[in-house]
Amino acid sequence: MLFRQLFDATSSTWTYLLASGPGREALIIDPCKANLAQYLRLVEQLELRLVRAIDTHTHADHVTALGDLRDATGCATVMGEHTRAECISERVREDEVLDVDGIRLKALYTPGHTDESFSFLLDPQRPRAVFTGDVLLIRGTGRTDFQNGDAGRSYDSITQVLFALPDRTLVYPAHDYKGETCSSIGEEKRHNPRIAGKSREQYVALMAALDLPRPKLIDIAVPANLRCGRDAPALEDQAPQG
Amino acid sequence: MLFRQLFDATSSTWTYLLASGPGREALIIDPCKANLAQYLRLVEQLELRLVRAIDTHTHADHVTALGDLRDATGCATVMGEHTRAECISERVREDEVLDVDGIRLKALYTPGHTDESFSFLLDPQRPRAVFTGDVLLIRGTGRTDFQNGDAGRSYDSITQVLFALPDRTLVYPAHDYKGETCSSIGEEKRHNPRIAGKSREQYVALMAALDLPRPKLIDIAVPANLRCGRDAPALEDQAPQG
Repeated sequence: MLFRQLFDATSSTWTYLLASGPGREALIIDPCKANLAQYLRLVEQLELRLVRAIDTHTHADHVTALGDLRDATGCATVMGEHTRAECISERVREDEVLDVDGIRLKALYTPGHTDESFSFLLDPQRPRAVFTGDVLLIRGTGRTDFQNGDAGRSYDSITQVLFALPDRTLVYPAHDYKGETCSSIGEEKRHNPRIAGKSREQYVALMAALDLPRPKLIDIAVPANLRCGRDAPALEDQAPQG
Repeated sequence: MLFRQLFDATSSTWTYLLASGPGREALIIDPCKANLAQYLRLVEQLELRLVRAIDTHTHADHVTALGDLRDATGCATVMGEHTRAECISERVREDEVLDVDGIRLKALYTPGHTDESFSFLLDPQRPRAVFTGDVLLIRGTGRTDFQNGDAGRSYDSITQVLFALPDRTLVYPAHDYKGETCSSIGEEKRHNPRIAGKSREQYVALMAALDLPRPKLIDIAVPANLRCGRDAPALEDQAPQG
């Protein structure tokens, strides 16, 4: 399997490019508009044909590359069925399996960070891996105070959907702010300080007390992402260093 | 296999933690002193026993964590046989194989960035991977204008030692400045703009013309690293963002 994890330092976003191998059809998860040229260069150099560009949810901190990738490659634009982005060409339902030339991704509905967040389980490849978007981060969880976020639903998604996966399942989130690239379900069950050993009530109280500042770019990024990032600035000059 | 790739954003350094699995002996490659607490936390949470800490070469842009890791865990400190660091407890020779509880790393002498640089080939694990330090970067090569660097030797190390590995061998460098995490030998053979299709003479001329500024931290980092980073500042406040 060809697996490339790519970091956007401005928004601390992790993007994933996957294919069964060089020369095959490929998919990309959570691409940033600012890095469009990098993705297109890699797709060309690895002789891939990009057929699906997926956003786990409507991002509030960066502009998506979905629209630009569609224009450049003809790929489908993919999000979960609850998205409000009208530019999405393929809305996946819970438990639906996307098959890209041998790469199989199962869609898991994991609301909480937003009400339309999906995770994607790479299966049956070994090692098994799950792309968790912002609902489950490495030793953290995504904030739940905007875009119809809900701490109780975040707790349920993490503990009932993601923590139901085998402990050895690798966790690949949409962000990391401390230089980590992946984790595992078992580690997050035991060592995630927000949720390990916490009741639903404790987690909801913890998330309510975070008192985070409003994301600087949310009023630009969300409307732009509802248009798949087309006709929007990449925002890289305006964002803080991640 | 347990494989963790960790990024130091200040110096854009990639560090690698490897073990056969949780609960086993582990090794770490190119750790940064500034991230010591992160490494020790991961080693503890994954129930690892760190037995070897390896530097591919004497770094000029960050202070190594080798000495601190030795003090904290009792691990061996490992470099290639040509190192001038007297604090190193295990000097590996060309083609020597380090075996850490089932993880086998073959030492490859790859001078050029410095005269004491080694690469380490992970073998026979699949996919095969090589940790190249600074001699071969993703679509780049390490500068050759200090610490007895030599562009001709860099060319020979890359083209005769590293490019002799199978094309599918994954390349994990000590640095990346553009958000990429890995490459492959085949890609670098075909697409590395410094060396693909270049003669030795062309490469030497290209490297001589780079005219790079002297690294800001070299006069602090190199003496500190020759003491394995003990009694030195981590330098993180003084370095530019990577």
